[in-house]
Amino acid sequence: MYHVAVIGATGAVGQKMLQVLAELDFPVSRLSAYASARSAGNTVQFKGEDITIQALTPNITEDGIDVALFAAGGTISEQYAPLLAENGTLVVDNSSAFRMQETIPLVVPEVNPQAIQATDRLIANPNCSTIQSVVALAPLQSLGFERINYTTYQAVSGSGQKGIEDLARGARGEEPVNYPHPIHDNILPHIDVFLENGYTKEEQKMIDETRKILNLPALPVSATCVRVPVTNSHSVAINVTFTQPTTVAAIREALENAPGVVLIDDVANTRYPMPLDASGTDDVYVGRIRQDDSLANTFHLWCVADNIRKGAASNAVQVARQAIEQSIHS
Amino acid sequence: MYHVAVIGATGAVGQKMLQVLAELDFPVSRLSAYASARSAGNTVQFKGEDITIQALTPNITEDGIDVALFAAGGTISEQYAPLLAENGTLVVDNSSAFRMQETIPLVVPEVNPQAIQATDRLIANPNCSTIQSVVALAPLQSLGFERINYTTYQAVSGSGQKGIEDLARGARGEEPVNYPHPIHDNILPHIDVFLENGYTKEEQKMIDETRKILNLPALPVSATCVRVPVTNSHSVAINVTFTQPTTVAAIREALENAPGVVLIDDVANTRYPMPLDASGTDDVYVGRIRQDDSLANTFHLWCVADNIRKGAASNAVQVARQAIEQSIHS
Repeated sequence: MYHVAVIGATGAVGQKMLQVLAELDFPVSRLSAYASARSAGNTVQFKGEDITIQALTPNITEDGIDVALFAAGGTISEQYAPLLAENGTLVVDNSSAFRMQETIPLVVPEVNPQAIQATDRLIANPNCSTIQSVVALAPLQSLGFERINYTTYQAVSGSGQKGIEDLARGARGEEPVNYPHPIHDNILPHIDVFLENGYTKEEQKMIDETRKILNLPALPVSATCVRVPVTNSHSVAINVTFTQPTTVAAIREALENAPGVVLIDDVANTRYPMPLDASGTDDVYVGRIRQDDSLANTFHLWCVADNIRKGAASNAVQVARQAIEQSIHS
Repeated sequence: MYHVAVIGATGAVGQKMLQVLAELDFPVSRLSAYASARSAGNTVQFKGEDITIQALTPNITEDGIDVALFAAGGTISEQYAPLLAENGTLVVDNSSAFRMQETIPLVVPEVNPQAIQATDRLIANPNCSTIQSVVALAPLQSLGFERINYTTYQAVSGSGQKGIEDLARGARGEEPVNYPHPIHDNILPHIDVFLENGYTKEEQKMIDETRKILNLPALPVSATCVRVPVTNSHSVAINVTFTQPTTVAAIREALENAPGVVLIDDVANTRYPMPLDASGTDDVYVGRIRQDDSLANTFHLWCVADNIRKGAASNAVQVARQAIEQSIHS
């Protein structure tokens, strides 16, 4: 049993981490919740009990934490995650701060559990859209990837509570606070900041993280990331080119038996993955599998998952469990 | 001056045709409005005047109509459009009934006005998503197209008034009537019926109509068409591969000078095309132009337009005007 801490316990992902730790029956002996000084003294719920939120200070290293899940943004992670990891705490960080550091594993347990070494104490949790995409793609890796192009439909919960509030504000006819433009009744081809190459940081994350998780550093990947007026669960249209011919049937078969994947591909009965069905679950739903006749060996996949659960909180808890198992069995 | 008829005058596109005929100052001497017997006797507005709706019957050929705009669905078009055209009326049909017939021109005036012959009396108006996409792509045709892949974000107004009502129903917590699943707070990778090849008819339309309008019958084209909870204006993520190298700057320059295109590509100031800005206008907005490093000579474009105006009503009126001009000057 472990003393588990959630850092950033008041945010959308932090709250979901508390819920998922309970639901997935993580072996918690004690639960500590940390947030900014502003929230200290307030409470969050864990298994029906009130947990008093503590202000995050460098003294956290003295609190005897075995497992720390970070969901408080990059700046907090940069300051506190290495501090705890050096002190022996197993840290799973949901920010992008450490994801692309070569010595830090970036893990989706269904895809690359072997990336975790028994001695690792700081593990990065990938970007939400990337997690669900690689869960859908990894079962097809034996077919040989030549190119991947992502086009996303991302929910406002990916921006946390403030994204959800902006959608509600718009529905009431009020101006947005979080986004630069209204998201209600609108579409924003803009997630995270813009980089010099014209891509957003979100698009660049999908490209870089896919390569790292699949351990294909030179794989051609591109992405267009788009915010849609949906509360929760991201959808990704994946266009994937293989190095060899394959069939829709072979792809379906590989996905039917894949961990963490649920195949919903029965268009005759109008069954395909949708955000409303994915929300509240930890699976990645894949459907609308079609050959793309415009390019050799290319296929379309439609992939939906709960971005706050599998795209963040649940994956972090699964990573922590995987790391503990690898420590025990090493 | 012409006696102009709108067939299907009570629908979302028909009503917009009446509005656009007035706004674009089409030379109307007399306006007749037709709909089903159910609506006969009701009125619609044209230039502030009440027009009494007539029931559509085969006697329409005796009404002396010079120009008929059809927006009443494929079955009505199949029955009445050839009848009027054979009688000398210039017919522009917004349904998909005649679009792929070899002898019938499928026209976007900015793209292929030359497809109209002076003797043509029946001209097809393309699919909404296709119109905006080819307006954005045609200025780049001299670079040589090798492949086009569309991924769409289509508004509920594309399903007419019943799509708009379903979105409103969902916001009130009610079940959908038009769509097979809720569209409020959800995403449906499903527009029009499914075909044997796993594509929807909407996706197949985008493929087939793009080839016909660009006069590139063998061009590799693919599409994924998706309904989003937005009232009006479609967005399309276009991934285009050229037969030769080019640059973002060259693409921007071609689009800046293109008819019907407005370039909005200033991400430093968070300016990019969005449905809320496009609605109520006849232009096609293009932005987020980026090189796609995952495939040779490939680029991303983000394209937004009002699907009821440029995607349907305005294009039909522009086609009628173009056909009249070509008759006069022939």
